[in-house]
Amino acid sequence: MWCQSCREEYEEGDAGTCKECYEEASETEEELKREIEDLKAKIAFLRLCSPVDGAYSVSSSSTDLLLLHAAPLECSSAAFCPSPAVPAHRAVLISRSPVFKAMLENEMEESRSGMIKIHDVSYDVLRYFVHFLYTAEVLLDEQLACDLLVLAEKYQVKHLKAFCEKFMTSKVNNDNAIAHYAFAHRHNAKQLLEAALSLIMDNMATLTEREEYKELVEKDPRLVVEIYEAYLTRQVNTAAAKDLTLQP
Amino acid sequence: MWCQSCREEYEEGDAGTCKECYEEASETEEELKREIEDLKAKIAFLRLCSPVDGAYSVSSSSTDLLLLHAAPLECSSAAFCPSPAVPAHRAVLISRSPVFKAMLENEMEESRSGMIKIHDVSYDVLRYFVHFLYTAEVLLDEQLACDLLVLAEKYQVKHLKAFCEKFMTSKVNNDNAIAHYAFAHRHNAKQLLEAALSLIMDNMATLTEREEYKELVEKDPRLVVEIYEAYLTRQVNTAAAKDLTLQP
Repeated sequence: MWCQSCREEYEEGDAGTCKECYEEASETEEELKREIEDLKAKIAFLRLCSPVDGAYSVSSSSTDLLLLHAAPLECSSAAFCPSPAVPAHRAVLISRSPVFKAMLENEMEESRSGMIKIHDVSYDVLRYFVHFLYTAEVLLDEQLACDLLVLAEKYQVKHLKAFCEKFMTSKVNNDNAIAHYAFAHRHNAKQLLEAALSLIMDNMATLTEREEYKELVEKDPRLVVEIYEAYLTRQVNTAAAKDLTLQP
Repeated sequence: MWCQSCREEYEEGDAGTCKECYEEASETEEELKREIEDLKAKIAFLRLCSPVDGAYSVSSSSTDLLLLHAAPLECSSAAFCPSPAVPAHRAVLISRSPVFKAMLENEMEESRSGMIKIHDVSYDVLRYFVHFLYTAEVLLDEQLACDLLVLAEKYQVKHLKAFCEKFMTSKVNNDNAIAHYAFAHRHNAKQLLEAALSLIMDNMATLTEREEYKELVEKDPRLVVEIYEAYLTRQVNTAAAKDLTLQP
């Protein structure tokens, strides 16, 4: 027989689908691709001009809010470093974050003054944060993903949190698994936590030699206990599964 | 052989794909579906609260612009009917329409006054228009699709125009084909034009009896000429194709 997809000959044992199902599947694929094109067009339409984009003229942008970053470590004299600020629109922040919404729709200090102080964040990270709120896009590296996930959690921007967590999960490796595990715990990042924990359990033999392990025992021994508990559960389950397959 | 998709038996002549291609296609479908989910989440994130939505409190919405509809037919005394107005944000209008962008970023009357008059449109249509600019969504009927397509063309909101045109194209039938053909001509709606023209050509026998045909001959005979030209081209092509298949 000849495969209608790859055009190569195959034996009866290597048969996949009948003609009808092959045609249906091709149609489905075409439909899904068309749907993707439609959705992409919608996204392009909904994306706003970012006020931190070079091409955007802030003078004419009618922003009605300033975000001030407060990064103690970067400032020599004061704990609060007010300049430069990132301009934004109330309407956008209200749409994107329930925390900003509560802040700006109720008569709070931030709403009256038109200024929001964002603590423990650098100017660059704040710019990327605002850019994402307007465009749903940002080019991540591992540090930026960490920083933005923390901000996203604080301001309940779920979509950004999921975006960063997905990126970080794809970057988990033996060297950073313990750090990512602890980070995921602190910030309720379940998907990242599972990926990191799984990798840690795959390398239990060398766990206790690692510097980050020793640090974690010092800082937060409960998290270490959870690693051992998960490992134990896995061992028990594996043993039970083995027993099951060995049964006559 | 057994089809891995529908689980039914089939003969050699009805073979579709080999096993490998079947598995690849299944994976591709899963990937496309995941991509669709991601895109939908992005759209949900990017969608803004609409200022014409009942759930939206305009008092706290920080809108900085009013759209005034001017529908002469609805107003008994004056040609311009200023009330009620639809509130909006400059930033959103600038992002969605190059016409609004030019209007609001240059020191034009509309930018200074914070008021934009939208002519020849009812209050309801204007509300739907603004709603779409914020959410990329609107529930269309045929009249609304016409009205919004006209507005979308005027303000160069391409995505809305395509949205309305797609809807109208799906609604073309024998009764409205001539009207839709003329409408599509006036508003450069190529897809709609082709669909309407194709249906008109499929029913040439009854064309000249139709009331809308007679009206079109009166109003815009050039459009009628174009119908006949297209019909002639189609006849010539069909004849040529027939000749080709009849050749030995």
